[in-house]
Amino acid sequence: MAKKKIKEPENKKPLILVTNDDGIDSKGIRALGEIARKFGRVVMIGPASGRSGMSHAVTFVNPLRLRRIYNSPDLEIYKTNGTTADAVKLAQRYLLKDEKIDLLLSGINHGSNTSVSVIYSATVAGAVEACLSGIPSIAFSVANYESSYDFKSAFAPIEKIIGEVMQKGLPKHTCLNVNIPNIPAEEIKGIKVTRQALNYWYEELERRSDPANIPYFWMNGHLHEVDKGRDTDQWAVKHNYVSVHPIRVDWTDHAMVGELKKWDFKF
Amino acid sequence: MAKKKIKEPENKKPLILVTNDDGIDSKGIRALGEIARKFGRVVMIGPASGRSGMSHAVTFVNPLRLRRIYNSPDLEIYKTNGTTADAVKLAQRYLLKDEKIDLLLSGINHGSNTSVSVIYSATVAGAVEACLSGIPSIAFSVANYESSYDFKSAFAPIEKIIGEVMQKGLPKHTCLNVNIPNIPAEEIKGIKVTRQALNYWYEELERRSDPANIPYFWMNGHLHEVDKGRDTDQWAVKHNYVSVHPIRVDWTDHAMVGELKKWDFKF
Repeated sequence: MAKKKIKEPENKKPLILVTNDDGIDSKGIRALGEIARKFGRVVMIGPASGRSGMSHAVTFVNPLRLRRIYNSPDLEIYKTNGTTADAVKLAQRYLLKDEKIDLLLSGINHGSNTSVSVIYSATVAGAVEACLSGIPSIAFSVANYESSYDFKSAFAPIEKIIGEVMQKGLPKHTCLNVNIPNIPAEEIKGIKVTRQALNYWYEELERRSDPANIPYFWMNGHLHEVDKGRDTDQWAVKHNYVSVHPIRVDWTDHAMVGELKKWDFKF
Repeated sequence: MAKKKIKEPENKKPLILVTNDDGIDSKGIRALGEIARKFGRVVMIGPASGRSGMSHAVTFVNPLRLRRIYNSPDLEIYKTNGTTADAVKLAQRYLLKDEKIDLLLSGINHGSNTSVSVIYSATVAGAVEACLSGIPSIAFSVANYESSYDFKSAFAPIEKIIGEVMQKGLPKHTCLNVNIPNIPAEEIKGIKVTRQALNYWYEELERRSDPANIPYFWMNGHLHEVDKGRDTDQWAVKHNYVSVHPIRVDWTDHAMVGELKKWDFKF
């Protein structure tokens, strides 16, 4: 049986979904939205406040809220009480249920998401979430933590990367994680394709006492840089390159599948 | 310069850290703790209440609490207001700061964590977190959602898998995600080594109105089973096998690194 074909208007602009984890009011998502508008119609949806470190958390034990805060023909802006992954789901399965999303952009994050931070990052999770159901997706982060930062030096590489992805597409189950160094535009040496540096955070847990004399802890820490490779995201950003790191949403250790088959699992 | 060697007592029992995401009071973690005690000294730390769907979320914008609720020579139990990943960090970097953790067990989760659920699961995140800094780690889940379930039929395969891992170890950056079908012990056909089924959730967002007539949404959904492979975790559990799925914490799509190097990234 032939599928019913819906004829699309020929001059229809690409539909670009933009999200982040610093919250819908942050300068990063507004900057990314402005870049995205050069490529198509933009729907922006972000958490009402910051969701840094929330990784791929999703909300199904509590109700989600959704509110439109801006509406024009080429730009709509929404906020939610949920996480970044929730925001992507709300857009895909409710707001844009009957439309094809051509591209998902997440960011621009205030702070880098290289190395093991890809695992903790909700910015990256936004890209992974859309990628799971086949949308070409890119996460962007800048290694600057000031909320007043203007992201100007990130504009040219971001536009270049979006342009390439829109032209060439991405394989199913692969999305991109882009990190931009915190330097003036003219000092950026170029774009490097990288792998994830295999480091880990070493946390210091600072013990304090509250007014009732009950202890509490602040989690802080430093990245334990055991991976000295010069082909990593970490190395690239530190050496003034923009890092483009392809992430595969298949977590299977395929080499280990073969190895484990030799183990004795009879019980 | 020679490293200072600390002589360990010869008969020292292995130190096993046990965590979960259903909360420290759930039957699953207590069952896993009992199994773990057959292999060594157990420190158990879990969230004070359920953290399902929290993925690898970590808490650094709010203080963490930590409380010991049981203490004997071979078993200590703690609870925290944090996530599963926080619990592992509190144990590694504070409670057991000066000790070597020999094994991390996460679960037993009430509900399966196959296919794309590995990405949303805080149970799996517990294993990934410990694996990042080199501890052999295993996540366990049973495809049963009743809080009164006794986990008895899961005991024999779990013991077998722990025994094998303690004997053979696991490669750096690889942990195991184990899923057990919800059937009586005698109906389990055996253990299968699997890959992650590449499916995704298709959410239904049910819109309701609160008493003030403001809309809210419940997220629900079904797994969209596009991956028909018979070598997957999903297939194994559905066909009465215990699934052992090796996860690699390096998310890089290494094949795509080569491909992307051919792209035009000059800007």
